[in-house]
Amino acid sequence: MSTEVSVLPESRIVTLLTDFGLLDSFVAEMKAVILSTCPGVTVVDISHQAPKFDIRTGSFILASTVPYFPAGTVHVAVIDPGVGGTRKPIIVESKRGLLVGPDNGLLIPAAQRDGGIIHVYEITNPSLMRPDVSATFHGRDIFAPAAAFLACGRNANEFGPEFKDYVKPSFAEPEIRDNKVRCEAYHVDGFGNVITNLPNSEIQRLGRLGENIRLMVGHRKFSPRLVRTYSDLHGGQIGLIEGSHGFLEIACRERSAASRLRVKSGSVLSLEGA
Amino acid sequence: MSTEVSVLPESRIVTLLTDFGLLDSFVAEMKAVILSTCPGVTVVDISHQAPKFDIRTGSFILASTVPYFPAGTVHVAVIDPGVGGTRKPIIVESKRGLLVGPDNGLLIPAAQRDGGIIHVYEITNPSLMRPDVSATFHGRDIFAPAAAFLACGRNANEFGPEFKDYVKPSFAEPEIRDNKVRCEAYHVDGFGNVITNLPNSEIQRLGRLGENIRLMVGHRKFSPRLVRTYSDLHGGQIGLIEGSHGFLEIACRERSAASRLRVKSGSVLSLEGA
Amino acid sequence: MSTEVSVLPESRIVTLLTDFGLLDSFVAEMKAVILSTCPGVTVVDISHQAPKFDIRTGSFILASTVPYFPAGTVHVAVIDPGVGGTRKPIIVESKRGLLVGPDNGLLIPAAQRDGGIIHVYEITNPSLMRPDVSATFHGRDIFAPAAAFLACGRNANEFGPEFKDYVKPSFAEPEIRDNKVRCEAYHVDGFGNVITNLPNSEIQRLGRLGENIRLMVGHRKFSPRLVRTYSDLHGGQIGLIEGSHGFLEIACRERSAASRLRVKSGSVLSLEGA
Repeated sequence: MSTEVSVLPESRIVTLLTDFGLLDSFVAEMKAVILSTCPGVTVVDISHQAPKFDIRTGSFILASTVPYFPAGTVHVAVIDPGVGGTRKPIIVESKRGLLVGPDNGLLIPAAQRDGGIIHVYEITNPSLMRPDVSATFHGRDIFAPAAAFLACGRNANEFGPEFKDYVKPSFAEPEIRDNKVRCEAYHVDGFGNVITNLPNSEIQRLGRLGENIRLMVGHRKFSPRLVRTYSDLHGGQIGLIEGSHGFLEIACRERSAASRLRVKSGSVLSLEGA
Repeated sequence: MSTEVSVLPESRIVTLLTDFGLLDSFVAEMKAVILSTCPGVTVVDISHQAPKFDIRTGSFILASTVPYFPAGTVHVAVIDPGVGGTRKPIIVESKRGLLVGPDNGLLIPAAQRDGGIIHVYEITNPSLMRPDVSATFHGRDIFAPAAAFLACGRNANEFGPEFKDYVKPSFAEPEIRDNKVRCEAYHVDGFGNVITNLPNSEIQRLGRLGENIRLMVGHRKFSPRLVRTYSDLHGGQIGLIEGSHGFLEIACRERSAASRLRVKSGSVLSLEGA
Repeated sequence: MSTEVSVLPESRIVTLLTDFGLLDSFVAEMKAVILSTCPGVTVVDISHQAPKFDIRTGSFILASTVPYFPAGTVHVAVIDPGVGGTRKPIIVESKRGLLVGPDNGLLIPAAQRDGGIIHVYEITNPSLMRPDVSATFHGRDIFAPAAAFLACGRNANEFGPEFKDYVKPSFAEPEIRDNKVRCEAYHVDGFGNVITNLPNSEIQRLGRLGENIRLMVGHRKFSPRLVRTYSDLHGGQIGLIEGSHGFLEIACRERSAASRLRVKSGSVLSLEGA
């Protein structure tokens, strides 16, 4: 076992990402448990409107946000179709922070982006859970207390045994050959921008600012221009942009690129430089 | 009058539940008044997406959440179709906390679940309201300042006279006879789970885990299985579950049970053990 | 240049208004940057559900809320179709607080309502921005750090040069002649109430409480009653009300007045006293 000291959560921030929506009491019950367990901690919402059971979208939102929080922040994420079944509750210790949630791949991209995974622990210690854990709401009964105890200084290794065979998500990596890329839509944001899984660092192989790139979605062909920002496009024009989340984005000025291209999360996209 | 000491709000948390939605400025105006009146207090949202004027749903969400907050928390709830009319603004002192809102039944189930009702006061003291109280927004002008003053240590009896004939909500109690139950849908959550008003403690009279139970919705018959958690169901199967909010739930794995059964909040449900 | 001392932000509150919605990570990334830059500050959401690119609605929500916050509060508002183009990032110093956002008119009504505009500065100092400012997300890379530095005590004049020719919004002022008013719908709230741009102080020229007023929307005629509050109307009746945001409201009890009148934000309304 490593002799590294665990990240000390001095900033005392706990973030929340779920697919619970904002109508119900689920999120507030989790906050109530956190504030009861670690009074004075600052709770910050990342999002509660991830589509139900959509681990891919949740993992993207989490990974996009986590690197901007202070080191030592504790992140709780609950998109958990397997609640109450055999999937493990886990804590992932990354280089900069701690992530708490189900072992279904949700936490892994964020931990990788937040400096890399140091340890993964299964949560098994009942003295660090709520008494009478329900079969359907581990967010309140296991994950929220774990996050609060971590924020108040408990070490991740107090919660249960370290393990190695955690679930790795299977979101496709882009296929890249010379000036050709086969990637996919990782996420469609609220503006209708399509965020791909192609890292910004690979954009230069497609072309330079101002050039038109070949884009195929199924059998339909488009010719978006590589631009710096939305306002470099005229109304309705489709463009490719170095995205603020670290990945190539397809955008359409003041319109939804996803609607224009008929693309949704997971759609396959082929790109080719001019 | 009781000689009991009022709950001391040492935790300094104020929660908010409204039907105001998240587009408008209503909620933020309330938070601004609370933070101006009692600087440093922690404000926590329970929900602002209760259906407009739906006191039943609001009361369920509030009652589901309140018991998880620290003792001494002040809860403000505003679903208030009678604002500016003759309904009273009130403070309900429960065994564990304080609830502020309109006298229309909204606060009562939460106070009952939070240890029981100790006192109810009408808010009449204008020195503990905003100057120039509007006729249409008591949330900002009466309830928010009251909650903030309570969180900063004022006693509930400074706000106005105690009274006894507050409005009790009329949500139907379930009818129970042997292994037959006539209950209703108290709430449909964001996953489409139907939360009934039958307490978990009464489930055993219907059967044991793994058994199929007879369910009638109007003239339509179903045969859901009594299971421990969602992942005990196969896709599309309907089940009955001991709910995490204390009531029997009807669920359908990764689908909406409410859509499958065509049930909405208030629908009558008949259940019979095998 | 003025010798007035800048407002000292002792209250350490930063508010956020955007059109980013609540699905994506944008808002949480801004909060992460704020909490990393000025640890311990209290971040309060005003709204993130302003319609995309709708500066008029955003400016109304902001102006409605800002006056209720403590003096010294820092407000960040990002409805920013011109991000990355030639529009300036600015700080507006009002008599009571500080506003940070794009120079497109969004901040001006709030500053005017918050005591009036004292100074406007362009943000040009790169040492008070995030390194590697993206072309598409100034909310995270310029506005959030600016707000956090202001909340932690930096002066507005450290961010860049003062300037005078900032963008003033062009929302129509009402035309008033005797007992006739030509105004417009400034905002339709979540209840369907139509908030006009006619100040409450001008209502008396239309009539007195209980009187019916002539209202024309296009060629359609209505005869709403001037009442004190929603509960003075019977179900479905249309009324005119002195609004809690300082402007005449058109309301319909427990229904949407906007749907009844077929009015939306920007619609022209003619009113005439009896």
